[in-house]
Amino acid sequence: MSIGTDINFFFSPQSIAIVGASPTPGKPSHVILENLKRIGYPGAIYLVNPNYASINGSKCYRSLNEIQDNVDVAIFVLPAPTVIEIMERTENVKGVIIVSAGFKETGYAGTKLEEELKEIGERKGIRIIGPNCLGIYDAVSRIDTFFTPEERVRRPKRGGLSILTQSGSFAELIMDEMASKDIGVARIVSYGNRVDVGETDCLKFLMDDEATKVVALYMESVDDGRRFVDVASRCTKKKPVVVVKVGKREAGVHAARSHTGAISGRYEIYRAAFKKAGIVEVNGYEGLKDACKVLNTYDLVEGNRVLIVTDGGGVGVSMADACEDLGLAVSELSEETIKRLSAKLLGFSATGNPIDLTGSVTDKDYVTALEEGLRDEFDVVIITVLWGAPEITETLADKLKEVKNSYNKPLLICTPSSEFTLRMAQCFEENGMPVFFTPESAARAAAVLAGRKR
Amino acid sequence: MSIGTDINFFFSPQSIAIVGASPTPGKPSHVILENLKRIGYPGAIYLVNPNYASINGSKCYRSLNEIQDNVDVAIFVLPAPTVIEIMERTENVKGVIIVSAGFKETGYAGTKLEEELKEIGERKGIRIIGPNCLGIYDAVSRIDTFFTPEERVRRPKRGGLSILTQSGSFAELIMDEMASKDIGVARIVSYGNRVDVGETDCLKFLMDDEATKVVALYMESVDDGRRFVDVASRCTKKKPVVVVKVGKREAGVHAARSHTGAISGRYEIYRAAFKKAGIVEVNGYEGLKDACKVLNTYDLVEGNRVLIVTDGGGVGVSMADACEDLGLAVSELSEETIKRLSAKLLGFSATGNPIDLTGSVTDKDYVTALEEGLRDEFDVVIITVLWGAPEITETLADKLKEVKNSYNKPLLICTPSSEFTLRMAQCFEENGMPVFFTPESAARAAAVLAGRKR
Repeated sequence: MSIGTDINFFFSPQSIAIVGASPTPGKPSHVILENLKRIGYPGAIYLVNPNYASINGSKCYRSLNEIQDNVDVAIFVLPAPTVIEIMERTENVKGVIIVSAGFKETGYAGTKLEEELKEIGERKGIRIIGPNCLGIYDAVSRIDTFFTPEERVRRPKRGGLSILTQSGSFAELIMDEMASKDIGVARIVSYGNRVDVGETDCLKFLMDDEATKVVALYMESVDDGRRFVDVASRCTKKKPVVVVKVGKREAGVHAARSHTGAISGRYEIYRAAFKKAGIVEVNGYEGLKDACKVLNTYDLVEGNRVLIVTDGGGVGVSMADACEDLGLAVSELSEETIKRLSAKLLGFSATGNPIDLTGSVTDKDYVTALEEGLRDEFDVVIITVLWGAPEITETLADKLKEVKNSYNKPLLICTPSSEFTLRMAQCFEENGMPVFFTPESAARAAAVLAGRKR
Repeated sequence: MSIGTDINFFFSPQSIAIVGASPTPGKPSHVILENLKRIGYPGAIYLVNPNYASINGSKCYRSLNEIQDNVDVAIFVLPAPTVIEIMERTENVKGVIIVSAGFKETGYAGTKLEEELKEIGERKGIRIIGPNCLGIYDAVSRIDTFFTPEERVRRPKRGGLSILTQSGSFAELIMDEMASKDIGVARIVSYGNRVDVGETDCLKFLMDDEATKVVALYMESVDDGRRFVDVASRCTKKKPVVVVKVGKREAGVHAARSHTGAISGRYEIYRAAFKKAGIVEVNGYEGLKDACKVLNTYDLVEGNRVLIVTDGGGVGVSMADACEDLGLAVSELSEETIKRLSAKLLGFSATGNPIDLTGSVTDKDYVTALEEGLRDEFDVVIITVLWGAPEITETLADKLKEVKNSYNKPLLICTPSSEFTLRMAQCFEENGMPVFFTPESAARAAAVLAGRKR
């Protein structure tokens, strides 16, 4: 690994070459060209393929060396053995993104090719992202090397979330999810087999990247454990880092090896390392999704005490269960608060934690519950809004926003996912309160915010 | 509890009275009247309220006793103390549904009222559903006593799923969810504080109810442990029963007590009882939702071996993790199968379990993977379809349907939830394959099917 070499140029390349360019719509190299144009990549794009003089009216070069310019990033879309041949001949390139599969993940022959690739990169000082990856989606510098058309996987707008992943499919899932939730991203890097650039180099870049407010990490294995913990420890002092570690058990470990050639190692060691580095660990895709959503709005909090306000008793009970399962403290209200709540709320509202406002709740009851409940010490608030309660209205979101602003506590909304509530959900989101559609999802999000103290 | 008395009449009443009827739109009793009309309840509806001679053109009775007919079911929508007064005077009623809150869940005074209510019911032989409940939504007999308007909580069509719950909010959540997924239900019973009719009586009815194919249960506490296990053991021989037990930990236990006055007891004892009775336990609302969805299509299977076929390596790895977390066996393929798969599939498809077809997958590759993989012994199959793979098409659903029909194994589809995939998801659902939108959700569904053997 070319430790220490700067990889920043990958995220601000003056020029990009597509090696293995094709005029055929649907071919990965053609999709990449289209995507670079669509996102509005501002630098020079060079096409390379000895079989064509031009592609769609653009000049096509026979080789990288023929280009009269230094190429910052070359994207290789070629069979694995051809990648090796061309790498050996290449001189004027800073870094390559090798999307091609057919390396370590395929067994013995592929492993030999990958070792060769690594050796060439190190010898020539060419930094490598991949192979067997999607590369970079960068909404800040307008780069999109993902070979999936936008019709199939939507691209998110620009925002503060950056994602690092060994898995391209995970990158696409979360990317599409973020686009559908209108959550913006800064940089997404899929590095696949990770022959050179991995999470540690990327995290080092993102640590000082002003566009990045939050880092989410999908990890099968770590590239360099000691250095990763060091870099991550520094990064988490500046911005939240969440991780989903997969390949935890037997079948997963085995699958990870076939997938990116990763030896995923003992899960317990990872857990300890994440904790040491201040990284918030989440479980699976659902955990990552909820984390990205909640960290798009709120920062981590210092404690783990959650106040639950609900208009459905059963949902409150399961919320309390879900929170405690995740290590949150559903701590009791003080005697004094209980007294005040009992005086101000209807006789049949259960004034514990959860505060159950029942189906007879009005908008004002929610405000009362929060104002009184938050006299006690809580770090996060989850508010369940079941629209079955006839007397709550669409103005509830405005009222809750005022409370949020006065108390400066993260308020998470839990509401069921239905046609009617999707409209209501929008009111909350527009007022800066993220909405979750199941009790478990809201609890996972709260647990992320309290990640330091669980 | 009036053990042994038949409660079938609640699900085929000749006549229903609404006690506390109101002409005011939005009032619970008015919503119930509208809902009974809307669903097309075919029996007689009597309105009772001494303050009105008629409501919206229908005669309004001063009291239940004034009605010149036996009333099968009377719905009480009145303050708790008034409920007691009227119950004491009532003669011609088989059963009552008491939606009113203000009983045991509110503390000492309410507990006294509830004890009185119970005593009156037993003395007069009047069966009671509730108090503090929503009552019955029955798509078979066309009854809807839920006081939530359809604009806020949609009603599912008729189907084979029946739901029993202490929690009304849980009933509404799952009801709306089922409606949105176009999954049909037979009977939903919300019995709240459960002064008389509870899960055991209802389960006994559902056991022999031909309209009910699957039973889902939300439980804070059990009404009569020994009898429940006995009835459930018989029911699970006929149809699957799934349960979500809430109030597992401290805050949840506490909240359950405030909610329906339930003492939720030691969770370990419940787990053992469920297992003994052949009930499949799921976790939280998400678990119940996935269970209802998968059991709407497939029956339980005998083993717990799951075959995973994916076109995204990372999603395959997390799927394997999620399955193993839930006690499923992601068992290895035989040497022979691996050989055949390697010969028939592209060089870079990982031929383990998961079978990773990579982003280069074609529709045919899925069929090949299934035909070869299913030569080994598996009980459930999860197929991940990430539409980022450019060569898969909308005809995949038809092709997979053929495989499903030939092998007679439950195929679950896992696909991300995006605008594009929602259209694709519909193709699968129309071909009888349920679709799940996260790896964890698909794993939960598979774990339900394998519930007997985990």
